[in-house]
Amino acid sequence: METAEIETRVEEMARKARHASLALATVPRKDKDRMLKALADLLESSASTLMEENRKDLEAGKAAGLSNALLDRLSLSQDRLSGMAGGVREVAGLDDPVGEVLETTERPNGLVIRKIRVPIGVVGIIFESRPNVTVDCAALCLKSGNACILRGGKEAFHTNTALAALIARALRESSLPGDSVQLVPTTDRYALHCLLKMDAYIQCIIPRGGESLIRFVAENSLIPVIKHYKGVCTLYIDKAANLEMAKKLVVNAKCQRPGVCNAIENLLLHRETAGKFLPEIARALAAEGVELRLDASAAAIIKQAGDIPFEAATDKDWTEEYLAPILAIKTVPSTEAAIEAINTFGSGHSDGIVTADESTAQTFLTGVDSATVYWNASTRFTDGFEFGMGAEIGISTDKLHARGPMGLKELCTYKYTITGQGTVKR
Amino acid sequence: METAEIETRVEEMARKARHASLALATVPRKDKDRMLKALADLLESSASTLMEENRKDLEAGKAAGLSNALLDRLSLSQDRLSGMAGGVREVAGLDDPVGEVLETTERPNGLVIRKIRVPIGVVGIIFESRPNVTVDCAALCLKSGNACILRGGKEAFHTNTALAALIARALRESSLPGDSVQLVPTTDRYALHCLLKMDAYIQCIIPRGGESLIRFVAENSLIPVIKHYKGVCTLYIDKAANLEMAKKLVVNAKCQRPGVCNAIENLLLHRETAGKFLPEIARALAAEGVELRLDASAAAIIKQAGDIPFEAATDKDWTEEYLAPILAIKTVPSTEAAIEAINTFGSGHSDGIVTADESTAQTFLTGVDSATVYWNASTRFTDGFEFGMGAEIGISTDKLHARGPMGLKELCTYKYTITGQGTVKR
Repeated sequence: METAEIETRVEEMARKARHASLALATVPRKDKDRMLKALADLLESSASTLMEENRKDLEAGKAAGLSNALLDRLSLSQDRLSGMAGGVREVAGLDDPVGEVLETTERPNGLVIRKIRVPIGVVGIIFESRPNVTVDCAALCLKSGNACILRGGKEAFHTNTALAALIARALRESSLPGDSVQLVPTTDRYALHCLLKMDAYIQCIIPRGGESLIRFVAENSLIPVIKHYKGVCTLYIDKAANLEMAKKLVVNAKCQRPGVCNAIENLLLHRETAGKFLPEIARALAAEGVELRLDASAAAIIKQAGDIPFEAATDKDWTEEYLAPILAIKTVPSTEAAIEAINTFGSGHSDGIVTADESTAQTFLTGVDSATVYWNASTRFTDGFEFGMGAEIGISTDKLHARGPMGLKELCTYKYTITGQGTVKR
Repeated sequence: METAEIETRVEEMARKARHASLALATVPRKDKDRMLKALADLLESSASTLMEENRKDLEAGKAAGLSNALLDRLSLSQDRLSGMAGGVREVAGLDDPVGEVLETTERPNGLVIRKIRVPIGVVGIIFESRPNVTVDCAALCLKSGNACILRGGKEAFHTNTALAALIARALRESSLPGDSVQLVPTTDRYALHCLLKMDAYIQCIIPRGGESLIRFVAENSLIPVIKHYKGVCTLYIDKAANLEMAKKLVVNAKCQRPGVCNAIENLLLHRETAGKFLPEIARALAAEGVELRLDASAAAIIKQAGDIPFEAATDKDWTEEYLAPILAIKTVPSTEAAIEAINTFGSGHSDGIVTADESTAQTFLTGVDSATVYWNASTRFTDGFEFGMGAEIGISTDKLHARGPMGLKELCTYKYTITGQGTVKR
């Protein structure tokens, strides 16, 4: 497409989405749920068509030399489609967040002010190669009464186009506005650039993907963005920690699934007990195949302990999201120093303390400036399902609007309705 | 200052503000209130110094040809300083929003998840010539545990510098972090440009001023912005309206203070009763000196009624914020058409319906996509004081984070603290 055509098409999509969003905001729950159930059924009954389109992407991906890990994330199977359908049915089963009266105030002049949860309006979701994001995000936006514009990655273009066609069919069959869910029909970056300027029609952008995609979005958007650059999470082992508990939590937070954003990348130990704790924890991690990167103080302890392999940490290690079985470790002189290190080098995602001392725990919970702060628990619980939200559209490390896991309520805003009896301002 | 020096200075301010914000987030209420009371006392006891600095701005303003209205907004008097001090004392008297537990959830695995209200961190306030904004915003940010960076307009530079010195003294005398409130020491636009890139340290920008300033901020900021371009507010008179009430509300919403954002600029009348209502309302408005801009249908009615002066409305009239005794009027065939007109041309600020029909009112309250929607009340109530917030830092027509008047709670975010008993993810 020519740039002028892209501009026209994107603006048209955005305008249609805004129009659809106004209708969708007042659609009752049963109609939204009916659409979601129809979509789930279509995902299962159209498996062969979807897998055929998916094969085009997989072949192009192989030809382009995509890694096996990426090809795996991209590929659809009967099982994965059933999983997607199950996810959509679960969203249908969740409570409708729209319309809840959050507060009612009666003012001395007789005005009754109600604060009511309502959809945001139009949400733009920018994502990369995983086609399940297309369906998950469409379902969550629809259930929360939002229209959405989806812009997926080029690796999944055929798959996403086929999924968007199914969503359109489910909307049509359920008599919901057809423009409630739209896929940007090109993966040209200029279309994304145009989309990010449509602040007259789109109220929120959620980018899901690597840090460079998210930075591009944040730098180019006139529309408010809710984002999450990376998860550099830390566990701090206090001098009053129970060693067995600490070992179990460190191994779980690092090893249970190292490739996710709520796994830890850094470990801090209180200096007074590092001599006792560190060798045991290091052995447990080494047994799990974790590579250790140690600062000078931690290295000195491990050298004394004998045969545990490690590398020297560099400055870069404290801010890096490994997403791999690697852990950077250092000792700190106090809980305050641990808090300061986390507030300086962490990403504000998920951090924890292990201690038996309640007052130390309270200092840490209050002082660490992160979306989720743990006491005697693994950091791996930061997600919408574990928080009881039922599903999540993402995790925010921003501070405005939503922080931490974002579910259906976080896809909403509020409005005030005010009732008077001919009330005038004096 | 050279550009390199500006960059260095702005980054240093931002870094210091972040550092101060971490300390300020855990300061107890009594210390914050003590600082606010000290500041209020200083504002009164330093009146002569402040007015001397203010005179420099007023003289420069006169020389630069500022309008009398602007000079008036800029000028300080003993009365205005007492008013500012009173405002600061009122903020001290408000509840501390920080630390409130908003939700507690116990999960089946034993984790206790608490959602707790906490300060945003560092807030940047960008404003124009009114020096009272300096003190109001500093007080509200401090009370809500936020550090702030203030960037005022060049017309008030001497006044703002003197006010910032007083705030610094009050911080010092109360042993609060000295960098909690900082004024950008130059009004060079490049400094503002640099400030808007400091997303590593600043979490929120609130611009207060004219639309062009706000657009500059929104276009250049990497930091989330909460904004309010303009207030194009509308009152709709339904066919089931009580005429006396409608007349009273229209006159109040337009005339009680035409220069503010929650005054109406547009009036819509249901076609079926416009013939009866419009001449009476138009006469009442004309008696108040309001200039009428009418569409063809409204003009036809007014012509029949005889001697009421008016002008023909142009397309531009429906989206213009007059901030003056001018009102654009048209008729609509239905409540749905009124809703559509407001959602298309309004600014999402404050809109209202006058009707005796509850079901029509409900359709309007649900369908109008604005921050505040009124039924049988003047739109003039959209502000923090009228909402019972005690004070406001501004009004948001954005949808993320805060919508409508923003008080102390809206200057906060939340965090999750999660307590386990050595809980690991399976």
